[in-house]
Amino acid sequence: MDLRKKLRQSSPEVIRQAIRRREFTGDTAGLGGGYLQGNLAILPAEYATDFLRFCQRNPKPCPLVGVSETGDPYLATLGHDIDIRTDVPQYKIFENGSLINQVEDITDLWRDDFVTFVLGCSFSFEDALMAEGIALRHIDQNKTVPMFRTNIPTVPAGPFSGEIVVSMRALSVENAIRAIEITSRFPQAHGTPLHFGDPAMIGIEDVNKPDFGDPTDIKDGEVCVFWACGVTPQVAITNAKPSICITHAPGHMLITDIRGADAGRGQINIQSD
Amino acid sequence: MDLRKKLRQSSPEVIRQAIRRREFTGDTAGLGGGYLQGNLAILPAEYATDFLRFCQRNPKPCPLVGVSETGDPYLATLGHDIDIRTDVPQYKIFENGSLINQVEDITDLWRDDFVTFVLGCSFSFEDALMAEGIALRHIDQNKTVPMFRTNIPTVPAGPFSGEIVVSMRALSVENAIRAIEITSRFPQAHGTPLHFGDPAMIGIEDVNKPDFGDPTDIKDGEVCVFWACGVTPQVAITNAKPSICITHAPGHMLITDIRGADAGRGQINIQSD
Repeated sequence: MDLRKKLRQSSPEVIRQAIRRREFTGDTAGLGGGYLQGNLAILPAEYATDFLRFCQRNPKPCPLVGVSETGDPYLATLGHDIDIRTDVPQYKIFENGSLINQVEDITDLWRDDFVTFVLGCSFSFEDALMAEGIALRHIDQNKTVPMFRTNIPTVPAGPFSGEIVVSMRALSVENAIRAIEITSRFPQAHGTPLHFGDPAMIGIEDVNKPDFGDPTDIKDGEVCVFWACGVTPQVAITNAKPSICITHAPGHMLITDIRGADAGRGQINIQSD
Repeated sequence: MDLRKKLRQSSPEVIRQAIRRREFTGDTAGLGGGYLQGNLAILPAEYATDFLRFCQRNPKPCPLVGVSETGDPYLATLGHDIDIRTDVPQYKIFENGSLINQVEDITDLWRDDFVTFVLGCSFSFEDALMAEGIALRHIDQNKTVPMFRTNIPTVPAGPFSGEIVVSMRALSVENAIRAIEITSRFPQAHGTPLHFGDPAMIGIEDVNKPDFGDPTDIKDGEVCVFWACGVTPQVAITNAKPSICITHAPGHMLITDIRGADAGRGQINIQSD
């Protein structure tokens, strides 16, 4: 049996253990169905307060779902036995804002002053949309969702600043309304859209030329719906040029033990067993 | 015309200016209708990262709606010209966890290392409940809502820890269901209840003997509904015994320029003119 197919039936912890053993180092799309997947940012403690402020001020692009103790590689509030040094399939290492390496394990790089931040990602709400019968073209066409830089500024905090990056999904008007209703239940996975309709209103020149990801068809009668995107904090971190920063590689997320719709609705209920 | 009556028709900024001039130093219940009122905690920067972690991990009792730059007494993300040194009617000063003074202005106490935290409070969702025709007994009887220590632990962060404190409102079952529906729209004002029904299940021995506030009648057929309460972070701060901490005096809140239901739904929209 194909490993990805097998992992699709597995619990988050079983998937994380396969990742930890380097048996699985692929992207996490479609895995851990119903559980919240997270974007990763690891920063030295000297940046922690400002990055926490940045997330608080920009909750749609930066929905903070977990933050570690300083120097502690475990994330007890996000699940059982999560070791952030080994439990993400691929990591990117940045120095002074520049990518210097991509690795499958950061155990040797771990430092006593590192703080881990986990931010919600769109996989959770996409699962929910598809479960309600709303087809998503980039998934049907096996593409990466198209993403665009906008002219909407984030609210800055210390060295962290920049424009909001959005992802776009083309939907019928009926499905756009339903998608707004559904994503309102996922504030920790970017929540409701930031915009729909005319891309120029948020500074997007050509909706067929995304800044990140792949272009997707837009059919007659469809409306472009734009959600805040997890690339936003990556841009803000690049702008801040921290001495060191470690992130997940795109699509290679942390799979938590948190049910998608629970996150941000209050106390987070970790599923035990 | 009575000042409170006049302020009831006034914008948040006009109310804050009356407070700043010490013309008004009373409680803020019923003022700034529809705008988010906030609980206040000011702490030295050395506690900031841990207190931010504490709020992130305990969003129902500690819904963080704003955090200042270090040393900056203004709160640009919460409204126009908010000076936290003067714009709250009454402040409490704590040293090493003990109350030492209550004052109407903290200009002379302000320090370059102070960080201001503003947390959502229940006034916002109470306004919404009453607007939907759900009567609240403590308000009808001009009492302070009854509050209870529970046996539900917060998720600790650094020195901050303790049990969750809840407020209780007795409602008909029909209104309890409606209240859950309505408060789900106010994640930044404690959101949905933590519990309803048997008080003993959350460690409350006698629902007629609150730990804070006043007892209220519970009528036949009514159910006790318990929401996480802003006293929780005050207990956690008392447990942490910070060298200094400044809070609002109970009921004497900061009135922000944020529409109640906007907070926490994503980017916060400050109402400009």
